[in-house]
Amino acid sequence: MSLKVVVIGGVALGPKAACRIKRVAPDAEVTLVDASKLISYGGCGIPYYVSGDVSDHQQLQETSFHMVRDEQFFQDCKDFKVMTETRALSIDRKAKTVLVQAKDGTQTTLPYDKLVLGMGSTPRKLPIPGRELDNVFTVSTLGEAIRIKEKVASGSVGSAVIVGGGFIGLEMAESFADMWGIETTVIEVADQIMPGFMSKAMATIAEKHLAESDVTVRTSEMVQAIEGEDGKVTRVVTNKGAIDADLVILAVGVIPNDILAREAGLSCSERGGIIVSKTMQTSDPDIYAGGDCVVVENIVTGKIGYFPLGSLANSQGRIIGTNVAGGRETFDGVVGTYIIKLFDLAFSGTGLSLPVALREGFDAFSAHVIMSDHSHFYPKRDMVSLEIVVERRSGRVLGLQGACQNGDSLKGRIDTMAAILKFRPTLRDVSSLEMAYAPPFGSAMDVLNAAANTAENMLVGRNVSIQPTEFAKLWENRASENLLCIDTREWGNAEPFVNKHPDFWKNIPQGQIRGRLDEIPRDKKIVLLCNTGGRSYESQVILRHAGFLEPVNLQGGMGFIKQLGFDPSQEE
Amino acid sequence: MSLKVVVIGGVALGPKAACRIKRVAPDAEVTLVDASKLISYGGCGIPYYVSGDVSDHQQLQETSFHMVRDEQFFQDCKDFKVMTETRALSIDRKAKTVLVQAKDGTQTTLPYDKLVLGMGSTPRKLPIPGRELDNVFTVSTLGEAIRIKEKVASGSVGSAVIVGGGFIGLEMAESFADMWGIETTVIEVADQIMPGFMSKAMATIAEKHLAESDVTVRTSEMVQAIEGEDGKVTRVVTNKGAIDADLVILAVGVIPNDILAREAGLSCSERGGIIVSKTMQTSDPDIYAGGDCVVVENIVTGKIGYFPLGSLANSQGRIIGTNVAGGRETFDGVVGTYIIKLFDLAFSGTGLSLPVALREGFDAFSAHVIMSDHSHFYPKRDMVSLEIVVERRSGRVLGLQGACQNGDSLKGRIDTMAAILKFRPTLRDVSSLEMAYAPPFGSAMDVLNAAANTAENMLVGRNVSIQPTEFAKLWENRASENLLCIDTREWGNAEPFVNKHPDFWKNIPQGQIRGRLDEIPRDKKIVLLCNTGGRSYESQVILRHAGFLEPVNLQGGMGFIKQLGFDPSQEE
Repeated sequence: MSLKVVVIGGVALGPKAACRIKRVAPDAEVTLVDASKLISYGGCGIPYYVSGDVSDHQQLQETSFHMVRDEQFFQDCKDFKVMTETRALSIDRKAKTVLVQAKDGTQTTLPYDKLVLGMGSTPRKLPIPGRELDNVFTVSTLGEAIRIKEKVASGSVGSAVIVGGGFIGLEMAESFADMWGIETTVIEVADQIMPGFMSKAMATIAEKHLAESDVTVRTSEMVQAIEGEDGKVTRVVTNKGAIDADLVILAVGVIPNDILAREAGLSCSERGGIIVSKTMQTSDPDIYAGGDCVVVENIVTGKIGYFPLGSLANSQGRIIGTNVAGGRETFDGVVGTYIIKLFDLAFSGTGLSLPVALREGFDAFSAHVIMSDHSHFYPKRDMVSLEIVVERRSGRVLGLQGACQNGDSLKGRIDTMAAILKFRPTLRDVSSLEMAYAPPFGSAMDVLNAAANTAENMLVGRNVSIQPTEFAKLWENRASENLLCIDTREWGNAEPFVNKHPDFWKNIPQGQIRGRLDEIPRDKKIVLLCNTGGRSYESQVILRHAGFLEPVNLQGGMGFIKQLGFDPSQEE
Repeated sequence: MSLKVVVIGGVALGPKAACRIKRVAPDAEVTLVDASKLISYGGCGIPYYVSGDVSDHQQLQETSFHMVRDEQFFQDCKDFKVMTETRALSIDRKAKTVLVQAKDGTQTTLPYDKLVLGMGSTPRKLPIPGRELDNVFTVSTLGEAIRIKEKVASGSVGSAVIVGGGFIGLEMAESFADMWGIETTVIEVADQIMPGFMSKAMATIAEKHLAESDVTVRTSEMVQAIEGEDGKVTRVVTNKGAIDADLVILAVGVIPNDILAREAGLSCSERGGIIVSKTMQTSDPDIYAGGDCVVVENIVTGKIGYFPLGSLANSQGRIIGTNVAGGRETFDGVVGTYIIKLFDLAFSGTGLSLPVALREGFDAFSAHVIMSDHSHFYPKRDMVSLEIVVERRSGRVLGLQGACQNGDSLKGRIDTMAAILKFRPTLRDVSSLEMAYAPPFGSAMDVLNAAANTAENMLVGRNVSIQPTEFAKLWENRASENLLCIDTREWGNAEPFVNKHPDFWKNIPQGQIRGRLDEIPRDKKIVLLCNTGGRSYESQVILRHAGFLEPVNLQGGMGFIKQLGFDPSQEE
């Protein structure tokens, strides 16, 4: 008798698992149920559909060869049955059946030998009044995305408020502001966007770039109510004021759809999410689960966490498919790799950001570097900013984040780091990474190697440095701190700073510093700086060798500082 | 007393080691000697200087902040002495001195506590007449590059022959043909370009692209003489004919400059190259060596090999610097990562190509995949072709090669693979790589994951496939082989092939194949194909399940085949 499989959920994990089951065990009888009409779409593409980069929502449902993945497609091409607009009501684990209900109310009992749960997630709801008003959306399904696009395409949206500065919120902000010219405001309750993913420095670069791109970002601000007239939203009220809005997107995160599993008695995390083994089995070995409805191990911390990422749903779906069909593959956990496009910049990361590492109890520090992605003499190149996060005790690398105009270049560095994170790499492992080099595509020493080298110099105390964000604070109190910045660049670069702040900014090009040591006061707090942190590090070695006690080196130099929007030469 | 260090060689490794020594041990007295006038330049940038992408040769000598790295620079900024146009004649290991001779003949004895050898490599000489003619060049030094550029810029070069289809030869070919419109021919003695680095399939893609870009590539052809008039080259004579040439570049590889070391009695490889330990020490522990003059371990094979790559010189230079200054770092070996730009395509690889793996005695196979670098629904995207090389017995991944218009995208995948090669990854490690995904920069399942999945399906016998190059041969003998291609794409794609070859090409879209099994003959050799190998694999599962014995699936599909320049619909 053939294997009977029921799959609940038809967006990412479900179809992937079902297809894989049929390829490994062609005899299996597979039925997939989903509550929606539209299934098997690239949910991560929704912001690009709303923006118009993807012109038709069907494209998100198409295969690479332009066939729409609907019920008929799965029946004809993949040989399994899809029941759309069909809700799974309950699981009877003893009888091994799932009770489902069609749109017309008809209930059916589906027997299974193996059950796959891929119910995904639901946008978190804010406990505030006004959520039910017209033109207040979440971005949960393709159906909702179609309604949002109809609305913005109608031309009736002059202003939009996005509540939540995470991935989806920011991508929607770009979509509104860039393609539709909508006055767009992002409100984030934390003191930075992308909290938990980006460090403060990276988030600041992103916030500055959003502002330059006509998106207003308001952090440390809490939405208290959504108000409207005639049933339609008109403004958003926060603890700091009110913002007019013809349209509101609530994007304050998602929660796993685990109710069906909970009601069936399967083990779930206290904070939400089905608990699965490495083989993606739930506490009932005949029931598998994956994607946005489960929690999995964070490989870096060893703890269980929630990672609702489309790429994981795909890889877990394949593993579930293999295992349901009698194989044995394992999912080792997550390092948390992400990438996001915000207008002309890409931001990407893997592993732990510095704030997360510290919160997790690691004695960690980070090093900032900025360098071009291609040879500095090759005409086509972009600057890559990287921040590498390191455990002090062991030199173990915990994570990497970056920003670059060239998202492909940035992704390459982050993917490379992500690939070795599970092997518990040290700085030496990263320093010695052998990366493809030719001038049009890289540097003889890659920016990723350089990040590890800089961090190693810091770790052993050879490079004593100050973080760009710390420096900005120090600069604010430059008089009381008795600060002197020594600019080790050539005069042309240093001039505007020296002219503006003669008491706090002095120019000694790096090549002259050995001969001009007597010009450097020993009673001031010295910050050495240059464009990237290289020449100032070199100068620091000289100064320390000459007996200066605490000259510090500005990490990432003026190049990094500039990305943060901090420019002392332009101050009043 | 301070540490005395002599460094021989001033292109890549030497300056890097010297700088690092001074940063770690500022008291050290470091002297660097080099036989040339021009030092510390980006040698890999020479083709881009000749092409004009890099307008001035000084740019190759500049730091990222536009200071020329000459004697003065190293003295002022790095605090060590550089003696240019000074040849190292011999090493007296007992006395710990190096005898050097300046341009004017003056000899000096330099004492050392530690000696660093970074003498680089010399172009291999062809044992043929005519090498001494005017306008016959190698590409060994920046000085020679300047003379080549002067020559091509003078407008007197109408045709050029490049002997050798390796990295430098091909980059020079692009430079001549693309920027100067010179009629350019590459002659390679092997039966493909880039032998040892690229598989036949990848090399074929490259050769086709070169031909489309007006570079004539002649493989399996041996140069026998260079002929000239009035002392100037006029043509190149081969075993197959003669080619007119106003300029000839000899680029048939390089050999390590190990004579100084051999004469000093240091252990060298029989085939050339100084032997060093993981700490980069020669057989004399006070003498370090690195870069193009040493041999190092290939991490994948465990054997000693020769890898003259600029990126390795840099990373080895840093390790030598640390160790000379009293530290202890190790260089674990090489995986052989490369990338090359050829007009509009980039080619990159790491580890072993299939021919090399087989030659090294591995029971290896490879899988070809083709997929877009970004989401297939995102408008900006390029196709990536990958070939992953796998040991059959263990599923261990031995190497990866690829081609793509977007070199940054390709480099990312190759670097990611290179990063884990030293951990002896299996297909599952690659299949489960967590790669950054957002539609503008990736796919929910990345092409690298897909390559591993395809190879795994092949390894377990689920996907029985034929390589693109094998298919081309089979097609040639289609009548005697009793071949039938079943095109599982939609009719629109299949039509021109079916119309041209009705006896050998049949269309059954993948979604219809279950219902049309009776149309498929059981007495023919069946090749299933589609655009990328996905639908044909799916169809193969169906056919095998229906009892067809040997239907094979065309790896990489018509997408890959097309890149090879093979198009049965266009045949006469």
